[in-house]
Order: sequence, then structure tokens, then C-alpha cells
Amino acid sequence: MARRIALAGIGKIARDQHIPSIAASDDWELAATVSRSGGIEGVETHATMEALLSARPDIEVVSLTMPPASRYGYARAALEAGRHVMLEKPPGATLAEVQNLAAIAEERGLTLFASWHSREAAMARTARDWLEGRDILSVEIEWLEDVRRWHPGQDWVWEPGGLGVFDPGINALSLLTKVLPRPMHLTAATLTYPENRQTPIAADLKFVGPGAATTRARFDWRHDGDQTWAIRIATDAGEAVLSDGGASLAVDGAPVAAGADALSGEYPRLYGHLATLIDTSRSDVDLGPMIHVADAFALGRRETAAPFHF
Amino acid sequence: MARRIALAGIGKIARDQHIPSIAASDDWELAATVSRSGGIEGVETHATMEALLSARPDIEVVSLTMPPASRYGYARAALEAGRHVMLEKPPGATLAEVQNLAAIAEERGLTLFASWHSREAAMARTARDWLEGRDILSVEIEWLEDVRRWHPGQDWVWEPGGLGVFDPGINALSLLTKVLPRPMHLTAATLTYPENRQTPIAADLKFVGPGAATTRARFDWRHDGDQTWAIRIATDAGEAVLSDGGASLAVDGAPVAAGADALSGEYPRLYGHLATLIDTSRSDVDLGPMIHVADAFALGRRETAAPFHF
Repeated sequence: MARRIALAGIGKIARDQHIPSIAASDDWELAATVSRSGGIEGVETHATMEALLSARPDIEVVSLTMPPASRYGYARAALEAGRHVMLEKPPGATLAEVQNLAAIAEERGLTLFASWHSREAAMARTARDWLEGRDILSVEIEWLEDVRRWHPGQDWVWEPGGLGVFDPGINALSLLTKVLPRPMHLTAATLTYPENRQTPIAADLKFVGPGAATTRARFDWRHDGDQTWAIRIATDAGEAVLSDGGASLAVDGAPVAAGADALSGEYPRLYGHLATLIDTSRSDVDLGPMIHVADAFALGRRETAAPFHF
Repeated sequence: MARRIALAGIGKIARDQHIPSIAASDDWELAATVSRSGGIEGVETHATMEALLSARPDIEVVSLTMPPASRYGYARAALEAGRHVMLEKPPGATLAEVQNLAAIAEERGLTLFASWHSREAAMARTARDWLEGRDILSVEIEWLEDVRRWHPGQDWVWEPGGLGVFDPGINALSLLTKVLPRPMHLTAATLTYPENRQTPIAADLKFVGPGAATTRARFDWRHDGDQTWAIRIATDAGEAVLSDGGASLAVDGAPVAAGADALSGEYPRLYGHLATLIDTSRSDVDLGPMIHVADAFALGRRETAAPFHF
């Protein structure tokens, strides 16, 4: 039987990904939404989380897709009302708030799923398996996109807590940390801020690791050519290149075929994982990608660039 | 029998605190130092950690007091050579590197102690016991000091990773998080950067928690009057004020007498705790204070102030 789920925060990512993924799944039934700006056709809508929680005790799971800065209050209310919670990435505005949510979920025996959709990229597991047992020599990330195309008019990405270019960059870090067999840590960063904005539009990162390797990452939101989401991993036995955000993998230039489950897509797999977590009474809260970003903010050298306007 | 310990990084904090504390203790014998700028009178000195580790296999513990940006390499070398390690605060330049060190220590069955000297403040335990069972209404931190007095000419505090005013501010956060019975998380921050520097000279922080309370913190490094390190905690049953960085406690205006062990001081207690950790084969790596600081860098609104020169 399908589990009833509510979706809170009906913006671009909810419409593009969450709603179709839930609709296509036999595991889930979209039973209600929480939205201040109108919900979606044919689904019960509540203006506040409190209204949803009191009206619908039968809904056991809430998925939160609003911007991270306001997510904590919703998540806490849902957990305290005994509901399982899934968080879009990044799971919150601060590390401490997500740790505190995880503690509440654990105390109450509920599932908290801090999702990282890029970890469900079609070729993530294949890449991880291929790397197993190989010596990694270097890693190079290029995550170059056009903010105007992916966040049209979304001023929240430029507000404190909005992460700026780390909003896409954290996808690269979530994918990479899933694929790598060993950890890394940041040693230097340069963050470029538009003169009129509070978050960076570009970032260059240097890491020590995995193992004896070094990792470089270049994130840029000013890229109006081909959108590039690529990770190049050189090993002692060939080079793997993840591209299209992990949807494609090539080894020494030759494309690797995707498995059958790759067809279902990142978000359908996320919701599949959520169902498994609830079935097995587990949580999945890995703050690793967010820790690398917080480290970059703390350690980064700040530079100033031209003002940005949508 | 005293354990042999080596001290790496012979700067102001080593001379002011570590060396006298080790010298005064029956638990410890300062067997060597690692220093590029000359060690201390009457103690064997090595120019590099590698030289120390190969010359002195009998030294089982290494205490690291150099600035955080260079600490990881020393710590890792010491752990990989089978030595227990104590880290001055903050334990590193990034959260990820300290997590990685903790993993190495655990794999090898070694003690890693990420020390927070302010948690050993004379009145910390008394304050914690007093708060137990009381409802906290609000917390207010004022940590106001003169950077010229405490870090004379130390340009590293202004370099990326040097933390700026969070170098003292993290002491307040380490003390507070030891004293509070429940967690908090940052919700807003304003960081003030001197026009010519990479780290903030002042910070204002707002937290949700503990519980239903709110916490405010004001850190300022431009304070040339009375140096102020105070935490004011209002509860449903009176007000506690920790001052002098936790050396003094007053409840509703009346001073509380310190216990007998308070006389020994923060650093002697840190080294006592280190001995206990090693005796009981445990580590103590609480990243909480550093997580709040990383959160402040990630979430903080940046403002610019007058240039700073020593």
C-alpha cells in the first residue's frame, strides 16, 4: 500500500522533480501540500505546517523543499508531531540545526533523511565500484553553470545562508564523497563575491585527499556556454570521468553503459531510498558535503567581482 | 611514573600555559620540543616532527600548540607514528581535517584530545550543576577584548583560517556548550571585517536554544577598556553570570565560592584530563564550538569596517 506523504514548499524544484517522482511511484501517494502561494491542482493544500499536522494525522511523512533558511522550523514541527522527514539539499542553513534535528528524530524513533540527489546520479555506484582498490592520483571537479538559467530571479541564493555557487557546488561534493573510498579535507579556498551580494558567485577549492591525492574544484555561476558538471579522477589504472552531474561515466575515454535502474532518475531513487529508510527504521544524515562548504566559508580567501543582477 | 610528552610549536601560548602546567604536574615530563625558532632552555629540541618521532620512540604523547592552519600535518604524522595527540583550540583549520584525524586515532587505538581550555574554567562545572533542572529563558554572551594585547603583531589571526575575533569567541562557545544542558543553533550572524583583513574583527550572533530560549553573542576585538568575558544566563529561578571567562560565577548578584580544584587552573586541568583519557583509552573530540563558528562564517552577513593595523 502506498504511504501518504505531504510536500511542503511548492517551488521550482518541487514541480520539476518531487511531484513527478512521487506521482510515478507505487510507494507513495501525495496526500497534501503546505504552501503559502497556492498548492497544486487536485491536491489538498494547507497554508501552514501546523494546519497540515493537525488536520492530517494519517500522513506519516513530510518532504521539505523550501529554501534551507526556513526549513528547520518545519522539520522540527513535523518530527515533534511524530512524522518522518525528508530534507532537500542542503539539509539546513547550519550544521548545528541539522544535528539537532537528527537528535530529535533519534529520540523519537523517526526517520530523518537529509537527501543529496546527486548521490543518486545514474553512474555514482558504477564509479564507486570502479574506484575500489585503485590508487587515486588526483581529482578535478568542474561545475560551471549559469545562475540565470537555474535560479531565475531567485534572490534567496544571494542572501546569507543561500550558499551562492555552493548551491550547485555542494552537489558535486555530495557526489564525489559518495564515490571516493577515502576522505579528503579542504586546505585552501578562494571565494569570489559580487560586490553587491552576500554569497559567492565562484569558488576555487583545494583539498588534501583522498589518500595521498589532491583534489581541486572549480565552481562558477557565470558560465553561459555548455553547462558543465564533471569530475575527473586519475588513478594508477586509468582515468574515470563523471559528466552531466554523474549521469554519464567514461573510463579512459570510453563510455560505460548505465545499469537498468539508472533509467528511473535521481529523485525517484531518492524516494525509493526514503521508503527503505522508513521500512527499516533508519535515518540517513550525512553532513559531509555541508561540512566541506562550511570549511570553505571559514577558510576561504574573499575576493570581490563585478556586481550581479538577474 | 610521569609520562613523557613532547610539545610542538613554542610560541606565546606554549610559554604562558603549556610549559608551566606540564612542569607543575607529577603526571608529565616534558621530554622534548619541536620548534623551528629555537626551543626552551634545558629541553631537547627538534626542528621537525619527523626528527622528533624517529629520535624519540619513547615519547608517547605529543601536544600541538602551533596556529591551527599547520596543525593537521603534525598531528597526522604523530598519530601514524603511534603517539597520542593533544590539540590546542581550535583543533584545526577545518572540521573535515579534525574528523579525519579522529578516524585515524580510532583506527589505531590512540587518544586524540581536541582541547577547549575554557571548558576547564574554574566555575564551569558549578554553573552546569546549577542550571540542571532550571528553565533557561535567555543567554547573553559578551566577549570583548583588545587584539593588540592578546595577539601582539600576530598576523596569522587575520589570515584565512586564523578565525579573527572567533579565536577568542570560540572560547565563549566552548564554555557555554559545556555549561548548557541542551543544544542551540545559529540563526543569524553579522561579521565585521576590517577593510584590509581576511577575518572578522567583530561578530554578532543569534541562536535558537537552548530549548525555548534565545542566545545572543557579541564578540569584539576593538575593546581597549576592561577586558570582558562574560555569559549571563537568565532562568525561571534566578540569573547566573559567568565572568572572567568562567573563573567567576555569581547567582542573583552573589558570588559563588570556587571548589578546591579550581585553584589549579585551566591548563593543569586540561593536562589532567589528557592523562585520564590515555589511561582509559578514550578520545575527546567535540567539534561543537567549531561547528557554531563554521555556521557563522557560512550564514553570516558581511560588513566592512576601518582597516586594522597592529
